[in-house]
Amino acid sequence: MQKKDKKVKEKRADRTPESKAAEPEKPAKDKQQLGLTVKKSEDFSEWYTQVVSKAELADYSAVSGCMVFRPDSYAVWERIQSFLDTRFKSLGVRNVYFPMFIPESLFKRESEHVAGFKPEVAWVTMAGDTELSERLAIRPTSETIMYDSFGKWIRSWRDLPLLLNQWCSVVRWEFKYPKPFLRTREFLWQEGHTVHESKDDADRQAMAALNIYKELIEDVLAIPVLAGKKSEAEKFAGALYTTALESLMPDGRCLQMVTSHNLGQNFAKAFNIRFLGKDGKEALAWQTSWGATTRLIGALIMVHGDDKGLVLPPKIAPVQVVVVPIVFGDDKEGVLIKCRALASQLKVAGYSVVLDERSNYSPGWKFNQWELKGVPLRVEIGPKDVQAGKAVVVRRDSRAKEQVAFRELAKRCSELLASIQSDLFAKAKRFLDDSIVDAKDWKGLMKGIESMKIVKAFFCNSTECEAGIKESSGGASSRVIPFDGKKGPCVRCGKPGVLACFGKSY
Amino acid sequence: MQKKDKKVKEKRADRTPESKAAEPEKPAKDKQQLGLTVKKSEDFSEWYTQVVSKAELADYSAVSGCMVFRPDSYAVWERIQSFLDTRFKSLGVRNVYFPMFIPESLFKRESEHVAGFKPEVAWVTMAGDTELSERLAIRPTSETIMYDSFGKWIRSWRDLPLLLNQWCSVVRWEFKYPKPFLRTREFLWQEGHTVHESKDDADRQAMAALNIYKELIEDVLAIPVLAGKKSEAEKFAGALYTTALESLMPDGRCLQMVTSHNLGQNFAKAFNIRFLGKDGKEALAWQTSWGATTRLIGALIMVHGDDKGLVLPPKIAPVQVVVVPIVFGDDKEGVLIKCRALASQLKVAGYSVVLDERSNYSPGWKFNQWELKGVPLRVEIGPKDVQAGKAVVVRRDSRAKEQVAFRELAKRCSELLASIQSDLFAKAKRFLDDSIVDAKDWKGLMKGIESMKIVKAFFCNSTECEAGIKESSGGASSRVIPFDGKKGPCVRCGKPGVLACFGKSY
Repeated sequence: MQKKDKKVKEKRADRTPESKAAEPEKPAKDKQQLGLTVKKSEDFSEWYTQVVSKAELADYSAVSGCMVFRPDSYAVWERIQSFLDTRFKSLGVRNVYFPMFIPESLFKRESEHVAGFKPEVAWVTMAGDTELSERLAIRPTSETIMYDSFGKWIRSWRDLPLLLNQWCSVVRWEFKYPKPFLRTREFLWQEGHTVHESKDDADRQAMAALNIYKELIEDVLAIPVLAGKKSEAEKFAGALYTTALESLMPDGRCLQMVTSHNLGQNFAKAFNIRFLGKDGKEALAWQTSWGATTRLIGALIMVHGDDKGLVLPPKIAPVQVVVVPIVFGDDKEGVLIKCRALASQLKVAGYSVVLDERSNYSPGWKFNQWELKGVPLRVEIGPKDVQAGKAVVVRRDSRAKEQVAFRELAKRCSELLASIQSDLFAKAKRFLDDSIVDAKDWKGLMKGIESMKIVKAFFCNSTECEAGIKESSGGASSRVIPFDGKKGPCVRCGKPGVLACFGKSY
Repeated sequence: MQKKDKKVKEKRADRTPESKAAEPEKPAKDKQQLGLTVKKSEDFSEWYTQVVSKAELADYSAVSGCMVFRPDSYAVWERIQSFLDTRFKSLGVRNVYFPMFIPESLFKRESEHVAGFKPEVAWVTMAGDTELSERLAIRPTSETIMYDSFGKWIRSWRDLPLLLNQWCSVVRWEFKYPKPFLRTREFLWQEGHTVHESKDDADRQAMAALNIYKELIEDVLAIPVLAGKKSEAEKFAGALYTTALESLMPDGRCLQMVTSHNLGQNFAKAFNIRFLGKDGKEALAWQTSWGATTRLIGALIMVHGDDKGLVLPPKIAPVQVVVVPIVFGDDKEGVLIKCRALASQLKVAGYSVVLDERSNYSPGWKFNQWELKGVPLRVEIGPKDVQAGKAVVVRRDSRAKEQVAFRELAKRCSELLASIQSDLFAKAKRFLDDSIVDAKDWKGLMKGIESMKIVKAFFCNSTECEAGIKESSGGASSRVIPFDGKKGPCVRCGKPGVLACFGKSY
């Protein structure tokens, strides 16, 4: 509750006194309160909390552990949705919507699955004044409710592959401390669910989904990833195997970005999903599921943000260019006319542009606000610029300024946006590459973990060794086992193993 | 459960025996089972159930009263979303996501609101094995959870108007018999929520939303509506007034299509949403909320469907044109090549096209299936058509066939699609107009209701007279009070009244 009160006070302080509404051009006196009060390198956790709140990305809600997605973060999610939805549809995937409720008996049908999710399930037990005869789980994931239908729909090889996806929220009632976007009891996601004739088909589908995610995360969000399989201990409850993309956050912790599972035939057995094959014989189906969540927004904030606030890669930024008129007294109209013309030129050129004509905030206040909100490029135009036929263009990432002739503006913005996109990725990639170390033995593994590195070490993939490493290292786990799969003796037990990446994680 | 078993059997019967998979061109023997077995005019309710199930729009789920939105209905919802979302954004509305849970104490804050919704609320009482200290309502609508945040966010006139919208599902645990799309315990919708400085601004916003809905429903869904205010008895729980669009279904029952509320200052009082005005004085805010649901898909099915199945207006149809090759033996390749070329021409021309190349179904079976699924235009091309340079084009609505030269095809499809769109609307409009009668007195009102008409009668807008009319007429209620507002004495009590439309409803 304290956090909320503090926020409200800050918000009130953010405003100039109401009585000054009639004096629009006065510079704001509250730059300090608008901006962040901690450095990213000094208090990463507080920095994150401030960015989320001051950039108006999310807010706490009246429900413990649940958050409000405010317009600026939801707009990022809409862009993620648009990218993924188009790509999924190009694979032939179609969208559906299944009930958010799962009867307890259905939820319990696949034993590993229920064991994995049950501790975190929210249960509906009452409707109006009536006690329900069977408790209903609110979906933590939709395998069980969907596959009950799949079992009814699928009869023959002609019904396969079945390729479905759903955009919705899910609920996992974690009791750990919540963190906006990264750990909340309700979050938004998409869940793809497919059914195939063979293991090969399911392998290919799981990998096709992972590759779409990789394109989103690396090319659009500008965050480099490590790809691979999850260990037996870390795989999805009920899956044959889980593939994942892992990223490294600036505090040295790994973040699982997405997962894509080959579910094998486990759920097909539990839900009786059988089909008559081309050979006339009945067979159990093979399945996959794969998901991406609003956690990606948390990664975006952490990886690219700086001491001035959010930094959005141009390909995901809902606003790519903000045009700020610098107006004093008499020249006002001329500047505004020029700004409007240039803003509309940039829009025609295909950029998402905001012209900030608000008269009740000073240019300096606006600069700070748009920097806080992470807009990739700022175009400033004052009376002298109009006379000179040039604008000042400022990059959000490097804060480098340059003068650009009006007639070159659209072309130069295109170059600068491309450069910001690739520079952000390159910077994050350097950090990731520099943070990976090899460990030849147990001691090397422990030392690497202690210095918050991602450590590559041979590992037998037993749940026993995974638990042992976790205990000795203060919580590190295997994050991924890269697909290339080098082999060697486990650093803990000496049995045959594969090279895995270990690290602490969110 | 009986329904499900029946469906599964039908589904099995729909398929040719698996052993025949190798004989693709044989005509299917099961046309009867694929199609509807009742006429719309003879058993409307069973007809609706069959269309929903056989056109694969929705399915029952394991949760009583909840349904599965299958790809073909969800695709219609996506088109509705796309239309509304674009229009809302052009008004400056931004999307957000609030938690699906509402703490009981918050839910109870506005007294009329809680009284209206509480009997249908689903309650979460447990998480994992822990009993929650306070029950959580699953949102039946989000006023209370959103306005708690609005109260924190809004300080000054500068923060207004606040224009937000949310796409999500809501839960209303009705105990009446469920009907897919029309009455299910969970359904999909959007809910717009706005905050304004004055009643006038809120009036305008409520009407702007209603006008967007009218454009969607009349111009895109081709369903004529009656617009007006809801009576005191029928308005939204907690609103100052509710506006609505009402349509008439073929069985003579009205369906409330959408609502848009001016909430007045009721919620602002309960949630302390105050702002410092331009005049430096603190004031209570004015609010609106407005929503459209997946019920619109139910209306679409009922209004336009016929004895062959669904009929989709071209502007909402996910597939507008299906191209079916008619192939026999030797000419197969030539026909397929021509079909592919024409399908891709139509795609380039901007239509949504499916080329049905499936080799394991006969042309006749395909015709029936695409008619069942309501695709507006079918293009048939066989070996003789290729030689003649012409295709056969069949309208779904009138089933009229014509020959069209290949080079004219795109242009003719455009004309035919426009004609289908306007003919569907005109037909529905004639039915609506012919179903409205005027009643001068109580007897006229009762007689009109008995013959399943919409009856226009003067009405004092008291909850007492509304209840009296409902009781005497076997369930009819005032549907809307048209905006033009003619005045006269109430047909029940004689007190001053306004002209209202009465009818039975879903």
